[in-house]
Amino acid sequence: MKILDTINALQNWRKSIAHDKSVGIVPTMGALHDGHRSLIARCRRENDICVVSIFVNPTQFNDPNDLATYPVTFEEDRAICEAEGVDAIFMPQYGDLYPDDYRYRVSEDRESCLLCGAHRPGHFDGVLSVVMKLFNLAQPRRAYFGEKDWQQLQLVKGMVDAFFMPVSVVACPTVRETDDLALSSRNRRLTSDHRKKAARFPHLLSTDASAAEVARLLKTDGFEVDYVEDFRGRRCAAIHCGGVRLIDNLPAPKTEDR
Amino acid sequence: MKILDTINALQNWRKSIAHDKSVGIVPTMGALHDGHRSLIARCRRENDICVVSIFVNPTQFNDPNDLATYPVTFEEDRAICEAEGVDAIFMPQYGDLYPDDYRYRVSEDRESCLLCGAHRPGHFDGVLSVVMKLFNLAQPRRAYFGEKDWQQLQLVKGMVDAFFMPVSVVACPTVRETDDLALSSRNRRLTSDHRKKAARFPHLLSTDASAAEVARLLKTDGFEVDYVEDFRGRRCAAIHCGGVRLIDNLPAPKTEDR
Repeated sequence: MKILDTINALQNWRKSIAHDKSVGIVPTMGALHDGHRSLIARCRRENDICVVSIFVNPTQFNDPNDLATYPVTFEEDRAICEAEGVDAIFMPQYGDLYPDDYRYRVSEDRESCLLCGAHRPGHFDGVLSVVMKLFNLAQPRRAYFGEKDWQQLQLVKGMVDAFFMPVSVVACPTVRETDDLALSSRNRRLTSDHRKKAARFPHLLSTDASAAEVARLLKTDGFEVDYVEDFRGRRCAAIHCGGVRLIDNLPAPKTEDR
Repeated sequence: MKILDTINALQNWRKSIAHDKSVGIVPTMGALHDGHRSLIARCRRENDICVVSIFVNPTQFNDPNDLATYPVTFEEDRAICEAEGVDAIFMPQYGDLYPDDYRYRVSEDRESCLLCGAHRPGHFDGVLSVVMKLFNLAQPRRAYFGEKDWQQLQLVKGMVDAFFMPVSVVACPTVRETDDLALSSRNRRLTSDHRKKAARFPHLLSTDASAAEVARLLKTDGFEVDYVEDFRGRRCAAIHCGGVRLIDNLPAPKTEDR
């Protein structure tokens, strides 16, 4: 497994791959968990070559504290990638990916302002911009994203279509703990008590109650609620639990479809 | 010579080209003149395949009247391309290039706000967005731009670097009339009197006077002046002559360098 820690290293590695080989990419911010493993496994099955990028992208963090406390576990990440048969890890520094210091960006002006976008100004500009850079560098045939970040998935798909990027975006189902909490790198930051309590989140989200009622019940349980909203057949929500932001989404109850 | 008037036609044509052949693109808004011919000739010399795009891109027009009066001369354009040995013309419609109706865009937040950007809000967002679409569709090894649109050239180069796009941007010298007026599609809209008068623009721009003095002299000559500014060793200017906007640039006099 190659560790590619510069743009040059990635570009040289990419050039060494024959034109008839398919490359798949799994873009991550590290702190890999079984959700990432499922993306990697699928990427491996569907492509000749699998590259995982690990980059905690500062431009998508609106909250400096969230960035500062984002878990970094490189040695474990490397071991997971090795075990999963990844061909290369791309792990650049900020200055490598942003030679322009983020003067240039990609943005979307409608759906990026809803849901998480309404609570995290600029978040999706950062996501779209870094994903575009990674796609242009790795030139993958397929890219793998988890449905847990549903809004991100829709916006990345929209960007690829709008700019005619030659890559297929593959959506992969959310992986959950046995108590149904969606896997997330941020779950590591939950105390044991908050971790137990967090299972109420997917539980309440999956009821037939209205979005407003679910929000009310989450607040009653002591969560800080950013939003619970039904959008395009999906019930999406973001809450804070012991200072840790958690998001999730499920098919919306039929009567709640917008 | 192929006429590709849909995304599918362009993509199928692009797929039919062998991996070891180089494609060059000359992005244009039509109304081709000898400036474009010089870009096309160079593109032909340096690449196996030459594609010219013709698309009057509405997202880069801040002035609806400028868009409405922009010259369209497709039959002449086709004849020029044929004579120059162009392999394909790509001429999409708005809905083809903007399936998202411009929800997604590329922007630059510093130099795009200066010079022409200060007078044409949103202009460079439109330019960068359409150029990115064209590059992703045509997948050229090289792309040819005239130095007449100097700020555009710098911003396109910056975008290519910031997003690691696998294309070389080739700058080509401004082509001028015998009286030194820079060739421009908009020159066709000048009346004969204004056309004669317009030669004062490159003449005054090339003197050793300060930028402010040049602006004063242009106003004295009856031009409406958007700006005359020295920026990064270049003297750039935009004026209106009989309702037609003209731009030009030359190396700045040494003492005027910022």
